[in-house]
Amino acid sequence: MNTILNNLDLLRNAMKINCVSAYIVPGTDPHASEYFAEYWKERVWISGFNGSAGTAVVTTKQAALWTDSRYFLQAANQLEGSGFELMKEGLAQTPDIVSWLAQTLQKGEKVAINPQMISYNAYQKMKADLEINNLELVSIDLISDIWTDRPELPANQCFVYDVKYAGESTTNKLTKVRSALKKSHADIFVMSALDDIAWLFNIRSNDVNFNPLTIAYALVEEKNATLFIDQKKITAEVANYLKSENVDVKPYLSIYSELKNLSSDKAIFIDGNKLNEQLFESIPVTCTIRNAMSPVFQLKAVKNDIEAEGIRSAMIKDGVALVKFFKWFEESVGKQNLTEISIAEKLKHFRSKQENFIGESFETIAGYAADGAIVHYSATPETDRKIVAKDILLLDSGGQYLEGTTDITRTVAVGMPAIKQKNDFTLVLKGHIALALAIFPDGTRGSQLDILARKALWDEKINYGHGTGHGVGHFLCVHEGPQNIRMEENSTVLQVGMIISNEPGLYRTNEYGIRIENLVRVEEAGNSEYGQFLKFETLTLFPIDTQMINVDLLTHKEIDWLNNYHSTVYKKLIPNLSVEERAWLSKKCEPIKQ
Amino acid sequence: MNTILNNLDLLRNAMKINCVSAYIVPGTDPHASEYFAEYWKERVWISGFNGSAGTAVVTTKQAALWTDSRYFLQAANQLEGSGFELMKEGLAQTPDIVSWLAQTLQKGEKVAINPQMISYNAYQKMKADLEINNLELVSIDLISDIWTDRPELPANQCFVYDVKYAGESTTNKLTKVRSALKKSHADIFVMSALDDIAWLFNIRSNDVNFNPLTIAYALVEEKNATLFIDQKKITAEVANYLKSENVDVKPYLSIYSELKNLSSDKAIFIDGNKLNEQLFESIPVTCTIRNAMSPVFQLKAVKNDIEAEGIRSAMIKDGVALVKFFKWFEESVGKQNLTEISIAEKLKHFRSKQENFIGESFETIAGYAADGAIVHYSATPETDRKIVAKDILLLDSGGQYLEGTTDITRTVAVGMPAIKQKNDFTLVLKGHIALALAIFPDGTRGSQLDILARKALWDEKINYGHGTGHGVGHFLCVHEGPQNIRMEENSTVLQVGMIISNEPGLYRTNEYGIRIENLVRVEEAGNSEYGQFLKFETLTLFPIDTQMINVDLLTHKEIDWLNNYHSTVYKKLIPNLSVEERAWLSKKCEPIKQ
Repeated sequence: MNTILNNLDLLRNAMKINCVSAYIVPGTDPHASEYFAEYWKERVWISGFNGSAGTAVVTTKQAALWTDSRYFLQAANQLEGSGFELMKEGLAQTPDIVSWLAQTLQKGEKVAINPQMISYNAYQKMKADLEINNLELVSIDLISDIWTDRPELPANQCFVYDVKYAGESTTNKLTKVRSALKKSHADIFVMSALDDIAWLFNIRSNDVNFNPLTIAYALVEEKNATLFIDQKKITAEVANYLKSENVDVKPYLSIYSELKNLSSDKAIFIDGNKLNEQLFESIPVTCTIRNAMSPVFQLKAVKNDIEAEGIRSAMIKDGVALVKFFKWFEESVGKQNLTEISIAEKLKHFRSKQENFIGESFETIAGYAADGAIVHYSATPETDRKIVAKDILLLDSGGQYLEGTTDITRTVAVGMPAIKQKNDFTLVLKGHIALALAIFPDGTRGSQLDILARKALWDEKINYGHGTGHGVGHFLCVHEGPQNIRMEENSTVLQVGMIISNEPGLYRTNEYGIRIENLVRVEEAGNSEYGQFLKFETLTLFPIDTQMINVDLLTHKEIDWLNNYHSTVYKKLIPNLSVEERAWLSKKCEPIKQ
Repeated sequence: MNTILNNLDLLRNAMKINCVSAYIVPGTDPHASEYFAEYWKERVWISGFNGSAGTAVVTTKQAALWTDSRYFLQAANQLEGSGFELMKEGLAQTPDIVSWLAQTLQKGEKVAINPQMISYNAYQKMKADLEINNLELVSIDLISDIWTDRPELPANQCFVYDVKYAGESTTNKLTKVRSALKKSHADIFVMSALDDIAWLFNIRSNDVNFNPLTIAYALVEEKNATLFIDQKKITAEVANYLKSENVDVKPYLSIYSELKNLSSDKAIFIDGNKLNEQLFESIPVTCTIRNAMSPVFQLKAVKNDIEAEGIRSAMIKDGVALVKFFKWFEESVGKQNLTEISIAEKLKHFRSKQENFIGESFETIAGYAADGAIVHYSATPETDRKIVAKDILLLDSGGQYLEGTTDITRTVAVGMPAIKQKNDFTLVLKGHIALALAIFPDGTRGSQLDILARKALWDEKINYGHGTGHGVGHFLCVHEGPQNIRMEENSTVLQVGMIISNEPGLYRTNEYGIRIENLVRVEEAGNSEYGQFLKFETLTLFPIDTQMINVDLLTHKEIDWLNNYHSTVYKKLIPNLSVEERAWLSKKCEPIKQ
């Protein structure tokens, strides 16, 4: 606590010296990453709040922290006595940051932000919004000088991601990116997204939790490609490999000076949603800026055939690990001392026995009983709930295998489910099946399909407050764009080869949560006089708990889908199962009927 | 033909004098209207092509006209010998205008356009796109001086639209608009959309086909409101009325000088999708521009309770007219000489007998047999098809009543429908019912619901190439924004009180077309722990042809909807029908069962 008050004092002193009336500290890194290193946790350092989403704002007299409903409790606890007021995002009475600043400051005062910690597009919007309120936004890093015990940047070695998994060489990928740049009339592409860089250069590492990424920037030009990365991370093998692909290597932070020295007549391609403001400010003002979605972001989303084969084989391994886990779980519950954390560890153990398993793809969500209703729940020692032979369990987990990234949610009856639980589960299942069976014309966006997963719920005035599907990387981030399936608009059309989750849910506060998640791959459904149609191939291989189903609520088409799915799961998994495991799975995959 | 070649010569001469290498002639007016006066048909004057969509581009040596597939045939005929090349929009090999200009012109050459004939936003995009190709866009009106026999502007008198129909006074509406301006930090709103102006000032006229509009501009400021309109149109009654609402009147074109003389420190609100570029260029560059969707556009879309009551009573009149028409049609077909044009005239005749009928809300589409497959078909003396006792008829029509605007499509069996026709019709009906029955959370956009109307078709790899629903004005334009239900994204959320069409279709080229269209109104569906939910009230009152239905393809829920709908239609229409008409309608409304 004293630390936080001390840090606040240090910051206010720096603000005074720099004639700044407010300082904004976002919770992100210079690469716009979802997970990032301790080194960049400036918002945690200044406020003490360590949730994944939140922005701190400090004025000479006040301090406030904005976060969303997932973190209201945690933030209230962590901010106690810190001098920070909690601003609950999403509540009608909560002002947004700009409105709050407009009320708090005098006309003409300066608001500062570290330009590494905000994207170019977000910075421009913030600047314009502040200007309307007669406030000025300026770029200053005030924390680097005062954060004296700052952690080191991660410096793990990279490895080459074999083309037998990646399916396409860096040289080929560079050709495609250069062709996209040419189409955009751009000379140089400034890359800052870590997964874009990992994909393009076919390298991986473990600088970041859950995501096999290395911290780097990159520039792609018509003739050259340069990786800006700490030399310590480059093994001889990686150095040779990059040389063979005609990729130059320069020190990580030298990207800033490299940009400053760009020839003034160049056209620079940036993805303003990803590129941090400081990189943008390093580009000579005489250069032409082409600000659009990263071509790598788009290319990487469409998995090639080798990647698709990889994920199919990873799904078999994931399914086998889940069979072993759930069989153990059923045999242990009520007999052993099980908790949300202990079962998550056991699940990791079963996954880790699978060949080429590298790690989990995100922190397992084991939400038992009422904890299942907390959408982004992850158990802590304080909340860790004991699991006994009743209620229902929501288990959302995934693995990183060299062959691909998995993400699966199953909701299972631990004891005898109540009729309300079964009805709720069946509504979610109807949505899951409607999306799994969707046929749609080429050119369709995810937001058009989203209602298929929600319709059975909406008919009962039920909804869930998260997206229906997110893109998934290939041995990369479990959340990957640009495609998704959400209520919110996203202009990306679904293309053959894209992988996306299908995960409707239903949450009864203080009671239970239900979610059914498989990954699906967009594939062709054939042509007609009305054009090309697409559909989904379900990739995930693990049974859906039939004990949770009220069969009367299903149509024949839905029952057929479920029985076919279970027949596929069984056929694909049994070659890797023991006799006892086969018997267990066979029971789980028994056809249902009305 | 000689006229067109002569006009082209005149234009090229003007281009030479003004050092312009290309001139773009869009097919619109300074108000971004759907229907507009002959006076503004510059594209027709220069090219001879009179379809509703198309842009002409003339260079010193070439001339080309872009239009979409609806007009490929008509344009090919009308452009023959004109020197214009037809550019078929939507075909892969057809370049867009900017690409074509980039190929045709030399770097640095000038492209000109009449800035009255393009919106500010479209102009900015065109300018940026040309710049990337090293071409310059300039604003010049080259046609006014050379079009010597230009028709006069319409000058019909306006009338006051009684508040007993409008439901809200201009003073009240102005208060809402001013509050929206204040929220946007704007001092002055420059209005150019004719329906926005008619709604805000509660005036109507008939300057425009099918839309009861008067040609005018307007400015709204914190204290003043000014209508820029030809004084000839203002009767003593209208003058008194406007005075009583504190609205000033100035000459139509004086808006331009009024804008030029604005105080340089003002913040000007514009709707850049509607405001023409010349109006924008008239605003002093020192003014601040707030470019966003017109607040009137948004307010007008949500119909008040009196407007809602009005449209309900207009629907009874429209339904009665349709009963009389279809009864006559059934009794006449095979006996009298009927054609697409003759039945459209008869339908207009029946509508015109209804009280407060002002005119049709658009040109009736009577598409018999294969003509039904042409989505925007309207019969001409050349195409006018004879109707005999076989095949199916698609009839899309609507009326303008003082109480509101209607728009209905019915597809009916003229003879005995084939099984394929019945199956196709039933798929369309399933989509229509799915949308009619939709329940959705507050905040939902039309693009999220669109798939409900298409899903039964998509499952069979069928689609239709038009929107599912368009907003409808209140005794205003039959196509009104901002809401719609389409595959394309539209950020407008559906709000209680909005009126929108529900019109899925299916088109078999050279065979037949099917469309079923009712108007619906957004209404509350109740609250739950998951928030506020909305649904649709179906407004249109006329039976759907049960002869066209394959009942086996319907679910019980769908059958219930249809039977309930027919029961409502019957109850609401019979008070205004003769005994024979009641008997006829009773048969049409008989319940169906499986």
